[in-house]
Amino acid sequence: MAERKRRGRGGGGAARRAERGTLKIEAERFITRNIPNLDILNEEALELIEAGAETVLEEIGVNFVENPAALERWRQAGADVDGERVRIPKGLARALCKTAPASFTQHARNPARNVDIGGRNLVLAPVYGPPFMRDLAGGRRYAVMADFEKFVKLAYMSKYLHHSGGTVCEPTDVPVNKRHLDMLLAHMTLSDKPYMGSVTEPSRARDSVEMSEILFGRDFVAQNCVMTSLINVNSPLTFDGTMMGALEIYAEAGQAAIISPFIVGGAMAPVTVAGTLTQVLAEVLAGVAYSQLIRPGAPVIAGAFVTSIDMNSGAPTFGTPEAAQITYGAGQLVRRLGLPYRSAGAFNGSKLPDAQAAYESANSLNAGLLAGVNFMLHAAGWLEGGLVASVEKFVMDADQLGVLHGLARGVEVDADTLALDAIGEVGPGGHYLGCAHTQANFKNAFWRSDVLDNKPFETWEDDGARDTQALAAARAEALLAAYEKPPIDPGTEEALRDYVARKKAAMPDAFG
Amino acid sequence: MAERKRRGRGGGGAARRAERGTLKIEAERFITRNIPNLDILNEEALELIEAGAETVLEEIGVNFVENPAALERWRQAGADVDGERVRIPKGLARALCKTAPASFTQHARNPARNVDIGGRNLVLAPVYGPPFMRDLAGGRRYAVMADFEKFVKLAYMSKYLHHSGGTVCEPTDVPVNKRHLDMLLAHMTLSDKPYMGSVTEPSRARDSVEMSEILFGRDFVAQNCVMTSLINVNSPLTFDGTMMGALEIYAEAGQAAIISPFIVGGAMAPVTVAGTLTQVLAEVLAGVAYSQLIRPGAPVIAGAFVTSIDMNSGAPTFGTPEAAQITYGAGQLVRRLGLPYRSAGAFNGSKLPDAQAAYESANSLNAGLLAGVNFMLHAAGWLEGGLVASVEKFVMDADQLGVLHGLARGVEVDADTLALDAIGEVGPGGHYLGCAHTQANFKNAFWRSDVLDNKPFETWEDDGARDTQALAAARAEALLAAYEKPPIDPGTEEALRDYVARKKAAMPDAFG
Repeated sequence: MAERKRRGRGGGGAARRAERGTLKIEAERFITRNIPNLDILNEEALELIEAGAETVLEEIGVNFVENPAALERWRQAGADVDGERVRIPKGLARALCKTAPASFTQHARNPARNVDIGGRNLVLAPVYGPPFMRDLAGGRRYAVMADFEKFVKLAYMSKYLHHSGGTVCEPTDVPVNKRHLDMLLAHMTLSDKPYMGSVTEPSRARDSVEMSEILFGRDFVAQNCVMTSLINVNSPLTFDGTMMGALEIYAEAGQAAIISPFIVGGAMAPVTVAGTLTQVLAEVLAGVAYSQLIRPGAPVIAGAFVTSIDMNSGAPTFGTPEAAQITYGAGQLVRRLGLPYRSAGAFNGSKLPDAQAAYESANSLNAGLLAGVNFMLHAAGWLEGGLVASVEKFVMDADQLGVLHGLARGVEVDADTLALDAIGEVGPGGHYLGCAHTQANFKNAFWRSDVLDNKPFETWEDDGARDTQALAAARAEALLAAYEKPPIDPGTEEALRDYVARKKAAMPDAFG
Repeated sequence: MAERKRRGRGGGGAARRAERGTLKIEAERFITRNIPNLDILNEEALELIEAGAETVLEEIGVNFVENPAALERWRQAGADVDGERVRIPKGLARALCKTAPASFTQHARNPARNVDIGGRNLVLAPVYGPPFMRDLAGGRRYAVMADFEKFVKLAYMSKYLHHSGGTVCEPTDVPVNKRHLDMLLAHMTLSDKPYMGSVTEPSRARDSVEMSEILFGRDFVAQNCVMTSLINVNSPLTFDGTMMGALEIYAEAGQAAIISPFIVGGAMAPVTVAGTLTQVLAEVLAGVAYSQLIRPGAPVIAGAFVTSIDMNSGAPTFGTPEAAQITYGAGQLVRRLGLPYRSAGAFNGSKLPDAQAAYESANSLNAGLLAGVNFMLHAAGWLEGGLVASVEKFVMDADQLGVLHGLARGVEVDADTLALDAIGEVGPGGHYLGCAHTQANFKNAFWRSDVLDNKPFETWEDDGARDTQALAAARAEALLAAYEKPPIDPGTEEALRDYVARKKAAMPDAFG
């Protein structure tokens, strides 16, 4: 990628600001794995699925709806277009995908927070999309802009979230046509981590690019990726005009998109894991290929949002073995495509941040790490099938992301870590607490939770016998009380506020 | 293994009883993995650790305390014995381990519940050892025999627990020197799954063998493994006389032992993962080799119970990245030894069956599956660092074990599962709920929780807005209300009760 240079309003003082920022909060670099991926599909299975996906594209095809320009692009690329149906000859989509980069850098306004997406890396981003919020004090209610800001602050202060995300919750008190402006302003001013752009209308994607140009400078945005935005495929096999319109804006601007089938297995895809993987691959191939028709080389991430279904009630289910199998399998398929991979998250169907929420989330978080995911949306805060952003769940999940960091680091094996001297010094029946090797290494030897309670029962009882939700509520309160806005050039912030005010004034409010 | 034949009191009617048993409860066969293990250590790291362990055995050695016969056995085997210290020349322990079987069958009194331990298999057993119990109704208290029986019943009724375990909680209302009799009687009569023997005194191990002879017939026990018992190493590098005495009884009787370092990292082993693995391997080599000195071919499982430590408070911590790394690494080392592997469990340090308990448990359960564990003790019910057996946690964990079963099954990829016909039938924009492929496959397509709630928010609220603990309490109550004792030959049961009564009458009560 082009070397970072600040221009115009965004320019100057980045290094100084970054330094001050790191003094105030701890922030781990994105994960670079030193452990292997778990590959659960063998070569034969992969080839069957890949052949199946090509058959789907050629014989069944995909629909690009309400988008004549897209149909024309496909026609010119060599596809067979019939109405809105696009049948893509075998091999064509895969060939088009080749111009997409295997990895790319998304820049943050604080260069220390830049993330490299792809390869052995894993970037963690918060929950996206819930219309409701929940906290211990106030229960479940529609989310508002003040809640949105709270989640942006918590993500900024999280050591293990590398990304500020996008719609961390829906600010339902702001008109639908103006929400994206307030949301982007919050990400840009309350955090210095990378963020996502709006996708709900092509015009809002355009606004996202323009606000980024104010923040980073126009030339910088022209030459670098500063946004990663979420483009859902309308599974099965449908690419709607609005989402594709947003994708077109971003791809033209050289900004990244996650192209992601959104699947409840058994409803929007076949009830089998192999069938779902076949459809997911077909959708990813078509979507990524389309991004490269817009602009060859545009950065994209191949996604897979897949949940299973309770066939009795029709409710989506999370943290299930089938969801894990799809996460692992899709990872293998995407790596064979040479693309960055998005999947997994702190998914669960629970109504409360309780044991169900945690089992299901941990199942998905672990699968995501070991499946080779490069960009994990929803890594913190997700509750109730994504309907609710939970303050306590956010803090608990963010803490657990430290487990992924530690595991991914791998095991260092050398003369010092083997500790033969320590074993000899301590000897049979001794203990290691005071030995020289322990003294030299204990500080960084073990990951330590900032939320969970490992104290003896009596101490825990004296402290109020708090469950994890109560511990997390206290942690969230302490974090928010200590929050300090990361420094930003006052002229830049003023220009951003000015842009938002002008845009808002130019439109009547629209809800829904 | 010898073909199963019943003799004496244990004989006859096994098939009929098994059939009746399977009509009453659902029981999954032990897991046979169709997915690979995750190997996080490379060849060079493995060789360094293996060489380190041999150096530890040769230069530092291990202590066999209060056990002159053991010292004599080691001397004759070629070790250098100095006081209670046994220094084992490089290669000797590994060579002695070669007579231990790579896998073996543990028989249950219901042959349908036999388990194969080793290879690609995973056998799941309940929590072991807690002096306290907890349930939602009664809170935390010392466990008594009635609680013990409750856990045996819950394990018997669990679809996903393959084993009845051992000390599922300490029945503190029974004298210490008589507990093993009541515990064995409960396992033998309230369940038909395989069980563990007593290890707290060699004489109690002897009683365990004798009671098993009543249950299975003496000849059958002489020719088959009917118990797997837990022999902890007193880490670092110490093998105490009591535990080794129990091991000697079991090995002589051809009964299986789990030989398992019990380590809080940083206290009983070096603070580094590599150092801990080196010590664990040295201890496993010495312990397994000793079992083979007693009786070559005696079935053993190489264990690793390792938790990390909070270096600030000294409290053990669970579900941490370091614990997972040790679980993965020890799995590789044990597989290279050609032995069955015991590790992981539903470990956590939480005082309540809440989110902390679930995150930490899920981290450990997932690591155990992917690390190639063959025998997982503590797979359900563990709370508060093992001090507490929790009824609700037991039911929640047992449910989550279904996730491991599903994931381990792997992904079937063939013409039917690829579902190209279904994808074509449904087409872009359709849905799969009613299609023929879904109708044909939905029943077994997705794992389904028996505890967790995936209903819509409003339905859940109408049902009482229960958290996971409350859902699990209701599930436990329903299971226990439906419990029916598996059929047992009345003469056998009478003989067992008779044995217990005679043994108890012959000893004064001892507590502690």
